[in-house]
This record gives sequence, C-alpha cells and structure tokens, in this order.
Amino acid sequence: MKKNRVMIAGFGNVGRGVMASIRNNPDMELVGIASRSPERVKKELKDAFPVYKLSDVSAWSREVSPDVVILCGGSKADLPQQGPELCKYVNTVDSFDNHSRIPEYFKAMDDAARSSGHVSVISTGWDPGIFSLERVLGNSFIPGARAYGFYGLGPAGGLSMGHSDALRTIKGVKDARQYTHAIPEAVDRVRRGENPALTPGDMHSRECFVVLEPGADPAEVTKAIVSMPGYFEPYDTTVNFVSQEELDTVYKGFPHDGVVITAGKTGADGAHSALAEYRCAWGSNPEATANVLVAHARAVIRLAAEGRKGAFTILDIPASYFSTLSREELLKHWM
Amino acid sequence: MKKNRVMIAGFGNVGRGVMASIRNNPDMELVGIASRSPERVKKELKDAFPVYKLSDVSAWSREVSPDVVILCGGSKADLPQQGPELCKYVNTVDSFDNHSRIPEYFKAMDDAARSSGHVSVISTGWDPGIFSLERVLGNSFIPGARAYGFYGLGPAGGLSMGHSDALRTIKGVKDARQYTHAIPEAVDRVRRGENPALTPGDMHSRECFVVLEPGADPAEVTKAIVSMPGYFEPYDTTVNFVSQEELDTVYKGFPHDGVVITAGKTGADGAHSALAEYRCAWGSNPEATANVLVAHARAVIRLAAEGRKGAFTILDIPASYFSTLSREELLKHWM
Repeated sequence: MKKNRVMIAGFGNVGRGVMASIRNNPDMELVGIASRSPERVKKELKDAFPVYKLSDVSAWSREVSPDVVILCGGSKADLPQQGPELCKYVNTVDSFDNHSRIPEYFKAMDDAARSSGHVSVISTGWDPGIFSLERVLGNSFIPGARAYGFYGLGPAGGLSMGHSDALRTIKGVKDARQYTHAIPEAVDRVRRGENPALTPGDMHSRECFVVLEPGADPAEVTKAIVSMPGYFEPYDTTVNFVSQEELDTVYKGFPHDGVVITAGKTGADGAHSALAEYRCAWGSNPEATANVLVAHARAVIRLAAEGRKGAFTILDIPASYFSTLSREELLKHWM
Repeated sequence: MKKNRVMIAGFGNVGRGVMASIRNNPDMELVGIASRSPERVKKELKDAFPVYKLSDVSAWSREVSPDVVILCGGSKADLPQQGPELCKYVNTVDSFDNHSRIPEYFKAMDDAARSSGHVSVISTGWDPGIFSLERVLGNSFIPGARAYGFYGLGPAGGLSMGHSDALRTIKGVKDARQYTHAIPEAVDRVRRGENPALTPGDMHSRECFVVLEPGADPAEVTKAIVSMPGYFEPYDTTVNFVSQEELDTVYKGFPHDGVVITAGKTGADGAHSALAEYRCAWGSNPEATANVLVAHARAVIRLAAEGRKGAFTILDIPASYFSTLSREELLKHWM
C-alpha cells in the first residue's frame, strides 16, 4: 500500500500528538516536520525525521512533495499568517479555533487555496470540528431545537488552555491552570428539552489553580482574576493558591471533555420528546485534536484527488472520507 | 421561497411522522401521498392531500413531479420491491433497516437509480443512519477502537417493533410488546475503554409484555418465547402477562433510545483515554425516523441538483446538505 505522505508544520503539543497519531493510522506516513525553530525540533527528535525551516516552504514543498501538511500552530498568531501562505504551496488541514473569526479565516484560506489549486480543510478538532458537525446534525434532525455545548462534565472538569494563558498574564501570577466545569442543573434543563435561554455564567463555572510570584498579594490577584472581563467576570470563579510542585504533579496533563445537546419535540402537536447528545472525553486534549486532524488529512487527500479546490470544513465532507475502509466494508460493517 | 416538493410513499406510522415533520420544516411542502390503499388514506386525511395508487407511479410521477419521494414502507417486504421500482421514476429516500441486507439493497438501488438518472438515499433514520455515521466517526477519530451500540438505556427501555412482531407469531399470544434494555455493566465496561468482546446476551436483556389468547397456557407461551432462536434465546428474557387494557394504556407509544460508544486510547504509548459517545432518545421512534428522512430528502434534492446519480448513504453526504442554513450562516453560527 502506498502510504499518504504527511508533513507537520509547527511542533508543539498538537504537533507531537499528530506524530503519535500518524503511527496509529497505518495508511499514513510522516515525511517531515516544518518548524520556526528547526534546531529545537531536530534535537528533540534525534533526527528521526527530516526537519525544515517553516519559512522555506517554497523549497521544502518541492523537495518533500507531501500529500498534505497538518498545520499545528496556534490560532491567535500562527495560523492567520501561516495558513494562507502555506496553502499557496501545499494542501493543508488545521485546527483554527477562534470561533468568531472562522468566517474571515475561511475566506482567506479559500481565496489562497483556490488560486493555487489546493485543498485546505480548516478549523477541525473536537470543537470546532466534531462539535460543529453535531450542532448541525442536531439542528437538522430536530428542527427548532437549539444545540447547546457544555464543557468539563467530569468531576475534574476540563483544562482550558486559553483561560490558563489568561491567568498567566495577571501581575503576581507565576503559573496557573484553569479548569472549566459544566453546571449540572443547566445540563439537566437542556436535556429535559426546556430549550432555556442561558447566559455563559449559567452554563459553566471556572476553577483556577494559581502559583503566586514571591511577595504577591493573594487578595489582589483573586480580585484581578474574578473581575477579568470575558474570561472570568461572567462566571462563578474559584481561585485556589497552590505551590508550583502541586500544580506540576496534581494538575498536570491536558484532560478535556464536552457535550453537544439538542433537545426538542417531534410530531404534529409536538407531543413526543427528542434528545440527541454527543459527548467526548479526552485524557489529552492536544492528542484528541491531533487524531481528528489526521482523519481530516485523509479527507484532504481524497478531495484533492477529485480535483476539488479551496477551503472546506467538516460540514462539507462526507464521513466516509475520514475512514480507511472501502465503500463495501462500510456498507457491510458500519451501516 | 420555492418550497421543496415532497411526496410520501406508504402511509403507516413513519408516513404519518413524515407528514408531521414536513410541517416542522418550513422549506418543505407535501404535494401528495402514494399508497397501496389510497381509499384508506383519503378517508384518514379527509382529502387534505392528493392520494395516488402506489403502483401507478408512471402516471403520478409525471402528474405531480415531486422533487423527492420519501419511501415509508417496511424493510421486509415493501422496500426491496418498491425501492428499485420507484427510483426508475423519481428521486427517493428510505429507511431500509435490515442491516445484513444493506449491501444487496444498495446495489439494487444504485443500479436502478443510475440507469434512470435519479438520486436515492437509502437506509437512513437513527439506526441505520445517524448511528452508522457515528460508528464511522468514532472509528476514524479513535483508530483501533470498536464502536458499540446499546439500546434501551432509559428506565423504560426501548420498544422493539421487530421483537414485538416476533412475539405475536407465537401460538397463544394475542398481543404483545417487547422492550429492550441495555445491560448497565456492559455499557460501563465499554465506557471505561476495555474494548470487551461481548455477545448479544452480554449487552441487552429483553422484557416482554404479553396478552394471552383465552385458554392459552402461560408456561408454554413463556417456554416458546425464551427459546425462540435469534430473537430471545440468546438473551436474559423476562415475560410478563398483562391484560389487553393494560397493554394499551401502560405500554403504549413507540419510545426508543440508544447510544453508540467508541472508547480507546491516544498518544504514542496509548497513555491517554479517549471516549466518544452519541446518544439519542425519542418519545416516538417512527417520528424520529421521519425527521431524519426529511433532512435527507433535502440532501437528495441537492445531490440531484449537482447532477449526481445513483444510491447514497448518510456516509456519502456532507452534513451541510441536511441543513436549511447557508454556508455563511453555518460558518458564523455553527462552526
């Protein structure tokens, strides 16, 4: 079997997850890594894979000729710049996750990919990504029902990288991690089909574990956290001060989980209840994103083989394109 | 807005559900019903819609010219005959649910639809249908994990029409309904990621509510039920005898629910847990099927407008095709 030739662009937690995921997908082969810091990556990987300077894309795209490049940079600064540049040279897939800027990012990627004749699947992972798909399915199959997303349903909650980063910008905070908790009463109301109007603070609470800088005032830091607009002010926020050692040992890893719930009614008189609910729980959030990216890399290659061009999201792709199985196998075993 | 012109072929519980669902989908318009018993349907609907004789398809397909016909016949005798015949004249969608015969039915529909230039989406509903999609997504996003289906997770269990019908074939049974229950310990093992080897009897138990014919022997009927191969023999089966009145009042309606669970590991050393779970619960099983059929009718029309031909399943269709929303709305609100 000729394997799919995959490159990784950006080698942080998601990039490492993609490397692991490629090993778990027998049709995929990692043929190189592009990084802004190739020396760091070469050292970490002990020359197991060719490493290129990200900005030398016109050279490495010709030399390596990957079927698809999985972009693993951050959504804030990396992808808006790297995405439209890289898709001039190669097919790409990324996990751009700044929800409010997705239309704008889609347009930039679509324009660049169309004019260069490439395929770019954007904004995939579990949210946006699987959850986007489930929101659309829920809303299509139960018309009129709203699709609600909750995060951190397990007892430990879900680690939010964005909110952890926000905590670290506060004066007096040396290190921090933020766990999001779904509010069980709100989840229950949605499951019951009430279709309630919920504010962000009705749906989630936030739990912070903070290591203080020497001499920082806990009361002042707490005040700065709970009053932070957007990130913490709208929520019931708890601040716990811990030692660096405790943070590194007890609050390690990247667990996250969430659920999309759509509830409504069916029938002529709306007599019958209808509930659709997709839940996922991941021991490692970046590895989850990586797994979804790799399945979408397979779809990118198929779309490109069909001669398609431009930007796509998970909403534009048939599920069979994510699978290694043939139509016959899918009809026989999975329908 | 020009509405999508939909016909219903076959007017039982699913057909009635489709009629109700079309009212809840503002882009859809019911333009006629085809039935083997048009007089019965005319009477029931008090001439609210034109009703045609199913076998007169060459006439009504020209007269009504529907965009799509939703086939609501049964999978055992109706669809294998009606499907390939009707798709010579019109675009169709159906809920053929005999899992083991789907490859054969797909081929018959694909051949007939291709040669007549129509689109036929087959085997959709919640299982097969949404569950097929979730099995493929689970297996694609968590490679190596098996996707398990459980039914009847709620306290009441799920009403199985097929098993209820099987009970009614037994000598001495006047009427009956069968509720399927998922075995909670098996669900827990799958959720924990054990990927266990489970027999049908490990996963579900069966609860029967039976009305006896006058003079029938309860012990003999019980023995005949619990020893019935395939249907009851492999399961822990409970038989309860009730009066017709109790059956009609307490065990009425068509509730059903189920879950697809895929659990596995991510990462280089499989260090991190991964769980994906799709659950749905419906007060009315036929109305659930109807809602999914109507969303797929929208997809049929779009596939036909693209000039596509032949048979399709939910695995071949992008999620956006099920939605009334535009690409811009989907990118803005649902990604």
